[in-house]
Amino acid sequence: MKVSQKPPFRTCCMIAFGGNDMHLDKESATPLYLQMYLRIRDDIEQGTYPCGAKLPSIRSMAENLQCSRNTVEAAYTHLVKEGFVASRPGSGYVVQDVGMLEVGTQRTEEALIGTTADGARYDFTYGNLEAGTFPALLWRTIADEVLMGAASSACNTYTDPLGEKDLRAEIAWRLATQRDVNCTPDEVVIQSGTQSSVQNLLCLFDHERDVVAMEEPGYDGVRTTFERSGFRVVPCRVVPGLANSDGRKLFFEDLEQHRPRLVYVTPSSQFPTCAVMPAVMRERLIAWADETDAYILEDDYCRDFRYRERPIPPLQSFDRNNRVIYMGTFSKSLSPALRMNYLVLPPNLMKRWREAFSEAYPTVPWLSQEVLARFMASDHWERHVRRMQVRNRRKFETLISALDRYLGGRVEVLENGTGLHLLVAVNDGRDEDELIRAAAERDVAVYGTKKYWMDPAKSRRGCILIGFSAIAEKDIEPGIKELARAWFD
Amino acid sequence: MKVSQKPPFRTCCMIAFGGNDMHLDKESATPLYLQMYLRIRDDIEQGTYPCGAKLPSIRSMAENLQCSRNTVEAAYTHLVKEGFVASRPGSGYVVQDVGMLEVGTQRTEEALIGTTADGARYDFTYGNLEAGTFPALLWRTIADEVLMGAASSACNTYTDPLGEKDLRAEIAWRLATQRDVNCTPDEVVIQSGTQSSVQNLLCLFDHERDVVAMEEPGYDGVRTTFERSGFRVVPCRVVPGLANSDGRKLFFEDLEQHRPRLVYVTPSSQFPTCAVMPAVMRERLIAWADETDAYILEDDYCRDFRYRERPIPPLQSFDRNNRVIYMGTFSKSLSPALRMNYLVLPPNLMKRWREAFSEAYPTVPWLSQEVLARFMASDHWERHVRRMQVRNRRKFETLISALDRYLGGRVEVLENGTGLHLLVAVNDGRDEDELIRAAAERDVAVYGTKKYWMDPAKSRRGCILIGFSAIAEKDIEPGIKELARAWFD
Repeated sequence: MKVSQKPPFRTCCMIAFGGNDMHLDKESATPLYLQMYLRIRDDIEQGTYPCGAKLPSIRSMAENLQCSRNTVEAAYTHLVKEGFVASRPGSGYVVQDVGMLEVGTQRTEEALIGTTADGARYDFTYGNLEAGTFPALLWRTIADEVLMGAASSACNTYTDPLGEKDLRAEIAWRLATQRDVNCTPDEVVIQSGTQSSVQNLLCLFDHERDVVAMEEPGYDGVRTTFERSGFRVVPCRVVPGLANSDGRKLFFEDLEQHRPRLVYVTPSSQFPTCAVMPAVMRERLIAWADETDAYILEDDYCRDFRYRERPIPPLQSFDRNNRVIYMGTFSKSLSPALRMNYLVLPPNLMKRWREAFSEAYPTVPWLSQEVLARFMASDHWERHVRRMQVRNRRKFETLISALDRYLGGRVEVLENGTGLHLLVAVNDGRDEDELIRAAAERDVAVYGTKKYWMDPAKSRRGCILIGFSAIAEKDIEPGIKELARAWFD
Repeated sequence: MKVSQKPPFRTCCMIAFGGNDMHLDKESATPLYLQMYLRIRDDIEQGTYPCGAKLPSIRSMAENLQCSRNTVEAAYTHLVKEGFVASRPGSGYVVQDVGMLEVGTQRTEEALIGTTADGARYDFTYGNLEAGTFPALLWRTIADEVLMGAASSACNTYTDPLGEKDLRAEIAWRLATQRDVNCTPDEVVIQSGTQSSVQNLLCLFDHERDVVAMEEPGYDGVRTTFERSGFRVVPCRVVPGLANSDGRKLFFEDLEQHRPRLVYVTPSSQFPTCAVMPAVMRERLIAWADETDAYILEDDYCRDFRYRERPIPPLQSFDRNNRVIYMGTFSKSLSPALRMNYLVLPPNLMKRWREAFSEAYPTVPWLSQEVLARFMASDHWERHVRRMQVRNRRKFETLISALDRYLGGRVEVLENGTGLHLLVAVNDGRDEDELIRAAAERDVAVYGTKKYWMDPAKSRRGCILIGFSAIAEKDIEPGIKELARAWFD
């Protein structure tokens, strides 16, 4: 740990962070200690406040800002806990060497123990988020506010089965303004995860008559939900690639042949191939649904994470005849443990949903909904999402360059500048089990792709999934280096 | 408000509450203000600390207990907020006139506005709980502890699809020791409400081959779930009463005729008739399931609330051949807005559940589960449940005596000393719509029972549901008085 000899920090009169004065707003609903914590953290993260600088003493900070010492102490304690600042006997509170991502890294180390199922040193798992990314302090503060306020009487009642109105309004507003999704709050339904929302959606279909289709390969969690609910599932091929004309041809051939009533697709980043569905194919898919009276379930699970090009508008925005059900989630940008996602239903299905679920209760706790609604209504939300986007973009770039450096020329990398994983194909005849085993021997966890195929015999041999949402940035390069040794030494 | 002229409170040296000294445990994980709040509240509720007494001033309390004034102020503020204590200029903090139930009443008034859908002055709704009963302060404290602790890294991950181990252990331990349910934590599955757990359970059955049965009349929320999932539902009559031999005869006749594969029953308090299934019938039902290879879904939603006799052991405890699925909920004893219940599956079904949901994620947020687990592991849990039992028993007794006083001889009261509602039959030819309308004109909300019948034509005419879980005790007698006027003046 470097400690600069001349901390550029002034401890008297004006408390300057990153060139700006700090003002605490005593009228704000945000507690003073939280205001202080957020302000200092931002200045550290933006690099305007350098490593080695000392924070003012608790006493002088409290005097200068005319707040209590408890307030300053609470803010400092959280900064220490999350690794932004170290408390050193004799030196006071010293800013640590943290770039935006090192922050995450430092927060991570303790917590990561246990998140790696097999305890691999380098775990390229998919789905989980990096430890320390959940904004626990903000969540706690808002939850406190909700539980101690008048609204908390809702804890004693059955609430709106469609979800809380204020949360649906926040979601609808963002979808309409940021994602080109046509919707009003009344068309949004809050649900407790992709699988249970698919299960509920299927109640509007007829398992005896209606066939459902999904991409092949595709997300197995949705496939098993279809199967569990007693529907016949048919595969529509997206390989050799949605983006080229062959892939498109096969996909539509399969649709024509099976005549499904509902087709599940992941246009913004096809799972698991990462292909982006081109606009022309989106239009054709909508036209097909119009013609055949079918519905499209568009799972836009990963829209926030796109690292090279601007996203294409979702299928839903092309929809003129109520054919598209749009689905989004908070699992990738906020927390997979929150169990919250949403559906945007076209008016005709919304009417049937209301009938089918007229006697139902919601499946998501009122408190989670209310806290999330207030979080989204605050400035903190956009900043949180941007933070996650920057973090994932940096990890993606680190991963790409590590793959190039250590495995370049020896494997084929399948990615599209989207999502939270990519695929790596080892074309020397080894199958995924061999490759996973070899990696595990060097303490690297990577994952197979066979299970995403309804017909695993057709899966591409030696195609490995490498996720980067859970691993710390600093572990990516050494992890890929080890992987290269494991596979080719 | 009475203020005693001679508060029996000593403000010096030893702070005596109910004859005991107060000690704050500075090493405890429970914050000091919360310890103080809980201690004073208990003494007020137990009547050891009388109405009109004054609490010591914040300053002297802080000095005597050697804690900060902020701590005392936080405790007092919560006591004031919840109506235990009033803050009077010049007199300090004065204990209010609160019996255990008046406490609820006082906490209620502000919050109740808005919980009554139609805004009726006296709302005998069923299902919702009384405002103020949710232990928001404890919940908040535990949630803070969880979110600020090392465990909070789970917020970034997908957690156990069966539910958190510690919560399942708490539930299993209570079921085994307090309810005669045979189970281990591995047989408990955490779910997000009765309807979604029934929907999930149905994934283990075959909608083409398996018929499901339910009591007639019975809980419409489960019936619509069966229907939504595409199962054929058959009614098994429980009227003129499960408890007499006719009722038993009809129920088993219907079972024999339809040969269902799954039958949904509510033995501890049949919904909506409140009948308790006698032990002999429980044995017969188990024997029937053994013989016909059928399953029984036992919904023990209201086991905690039994006001006259001790409960009969659940069907599950009679089960020797893996025929019973036991279901319980936290909606009646803790919060309907929490959306948490559980299933206890017999080993054969548990095995199939694990297979069917092997790719599934949990539907209940990790944080809710973790907070509830820690709540249940603390002393506070049993006290909370006892408090709810005492509260509901008093409301039940108040309701029964009000019905006797104002409607005695003019209506038939159908109850069994169980549950959170009872039925009132008006036998003069008026139907439920007329009776509900008449009551509404006097600002009393009561509810119909026709919707609980698959064949509403067979429902009993003029049979009205009166719930007492949401209404404040003090409103019960005036509400019934108004109801008598509405119906018979």
